[in-house]
Amino acid sequence: MRSLSIYQDFVEAEITSYNLPASPNNLYEPITYFLGLGGKRMRPVLALMSAELFGSPFEAAKDAALSVELFHNFSLIHDDIMDAAPLRRGQETVHKKWSENVGILSGDALLIEAYKTLANYPPEILAKLLPVFNKTATEVCEGQQWDVDFETMETVKIDAYIKMIAYKTAVLVGCSLKMGAIVAGASDSDANDLYDFGVNLGLAFQIQDDILDVYADQNKFGKQLGGDIIANKKTFLLLKAMETANEAQLRELKALSTTDDTVQKIDQTMAIYGALDIKAKATDKMNEYHDMAMENLAHIALPEEKKTPLRDLAEFLLGREH
Amino acid sequence: MRSLSIYQDFVEAEITSYNLPASPNNLYEPITYFLGLGGKRMRPVLALMSAELFGSPFEAAKDAALSVELFHNFSLIHDDIMDAAPLRRGQETVHKKWSENVGILSGDALLIEAYKTLANYPPEILAKLLPVFNKTATEVCEGQQWDVDFETMETVKIDAYIKMIAYKTAVLVGCSLKMGAIVAGASDSDANDLYDFGVNLGLAFQIQDDILDVYADQNKFGKQLGGDIIANKKTFLLLKAMETANEAQLRELKALSTTDDTVQKIDQTMAIYGALDIKAKATDKMNEYHDMAMENLAHIALPEEKKTPLRDLAEFLLGREH
Repeated sequence: MRSLSIYQDFVEAEITSYNLPASPNNLYEPITYFLGLGGKRMRPVLALMSAELFGSPFEAAKDAALSVELFHNFSLIHDDIMDAAPLRRGQETVHKKWSENVGILSGDALLIEAYKTLANYPPEILAKLLPVFNKTATEVCEGQQWDVDFETMETVKIDAYIKMIAYKTAVLVGCSLKMGAIVAGASDSDANDLYDFGVNLGLAFQIQDDILDVYADQNKFGKQLGGDIIANKKTFLLLKAMETANEAQLRELKALSTTDDTVQKIDQTMAIYGALDIKAKATDKMNEYHDMAMENLAHIALPEEKKTPLRDLAEFLLGREH
Repeated sequence: MRSLSIYQDFVEAEITSYNLPASPNNLYEPITYFLGLGGKRMRPVLALMSAELFGSPFEAAKDAALSVELFHNFSLIHDDIMDAAPLRRGQETVHKKWSENVGILSGDALLIEAYKTLANYPPEILAKLLPVFNKTATEVCEGQQWDVDFETMETVKIDAYIKMIAYKTAVLVGCSLKMGAIVAGASDSDANDLYDFGVNLGLAFQIQDDILDVYADQNKFGKQLGGDIIANKKTFLLLKAMETANEAQLRELKALSTTDDTVQKIDQTMAIYGALDIKAKATDKMNEYHDMAMENLAHIALPEEKKTPLRDLAEFLLGREH
């Protein structure tokens, strides 16, 4: 596949040269700061790759790619306030470095910038992009609200959890791909298949994230293992364990949620996960979404070799590369 | 003029029947609550009147009218958080009734709803509306940031104050009128004149607001007089006084800003305003914007009698009705 870094470098250059007013400084400096924190830029890269898949130069999807990245960063700035998160990518979050008010207003301005960037497309394309973008934007807010709601619930059904992660993260992956397809003039059917590919890929990726928190190779994993367990985060693993646990295991899981001994907490939770075969169950679920994504890709009316870059990227994101 | 209440009732009915999802409840209930707090609905009314001015049935501007009202309410919800305001129209603000996080996320969802409503227009109209809406939305954020910045500044130049109130409130009045004009197929020149009319009207209205806080007839005024003086709010009156005061008066104004005796604070501030003829100076400035607004209206290539409703509304808003 064409090296990922070609798309990433293009996105990075566009983000860096993105034209924001100089004033008011307290509104725009935080945006510039936050956009500069980097990240894999996976969503905009997918928009570019999607346009290329359907025969456009990838640069044609520049504004679609930028708008999803701007939107994504808006949602992170506001989520960081709601989660009271001090750090993002190892750097101070906006509300921590400035103030909550600055975080709120800069986030608002960034969301509007996303719409401004989208408005660069000609009327007929814009009219197709905007509903996709709007629907996704609403769903991301709904997903965030469910995530907040889930925190104070005793347990959450697996289906509700899947819907939450779909809305909170996976639909924006689908939206990125679909917008690239629209820009390149793909058929509705192909654009929708690519959207579904993105959502299923996003779900597989999110479940992998839950698995890696507990079962990653510590040498390759950037953070401390078991962070989700310590934080009582309702992951696919925990919810599946609660769903399949017997009464004694359920009591133990509840008791562990209030313990301060983090080593014991991780060890005993993992023991229950082991007894319930949670790793295999989560892996099955991840593979299920991966397989659905591949099926979505297979549906698209293009020669298979054209799809190789997206298939390779999916395998790479899901850690299946050779 | 056709009674204002015809437009207001139409807007109220559309707001009441506005279709929001039922779930997640914590996201949408606050929006329904806040939209139901009422208000004069002046911005959407202006969008409707503007469409009618240019020969459309006012209902054609329904979605433009709704989108400015949704946007306006989004900005109020977030501003209330930033201002730590407990009340809005005599009722609890969203962040007070629920939480700051709910206020942030509901506001975000409401801003996106504004864009969704706008996206109901056909491509060619949408492509004309969106840049106007986006530019205005950005300016409202910038105006709010300046307002926040001004709070901690010792003094502010009159020009900077005018720009702040223009961005924070007046441009949305202009945007409402311009969007109604665009929907009705007005020429660019007429749409721009109407935009300028709205901005100048908004500025006149805002300066009137500053004047009324000090010089209103207490029997007709809904709130306590002198509230801005007590709160050390940088109004046109205070800034004009600071600009024209001699050294002794300036020292006294500074001393008054830290006093706890509110009766004395209001009396002595008003004595300085009297000595400096501040009421007349503010009234002159208000009239200046009023006159410019009327000039903008005169430029519009329509028979004068067609413009009567907007002229009457302007006189009504500026308390000049007979």
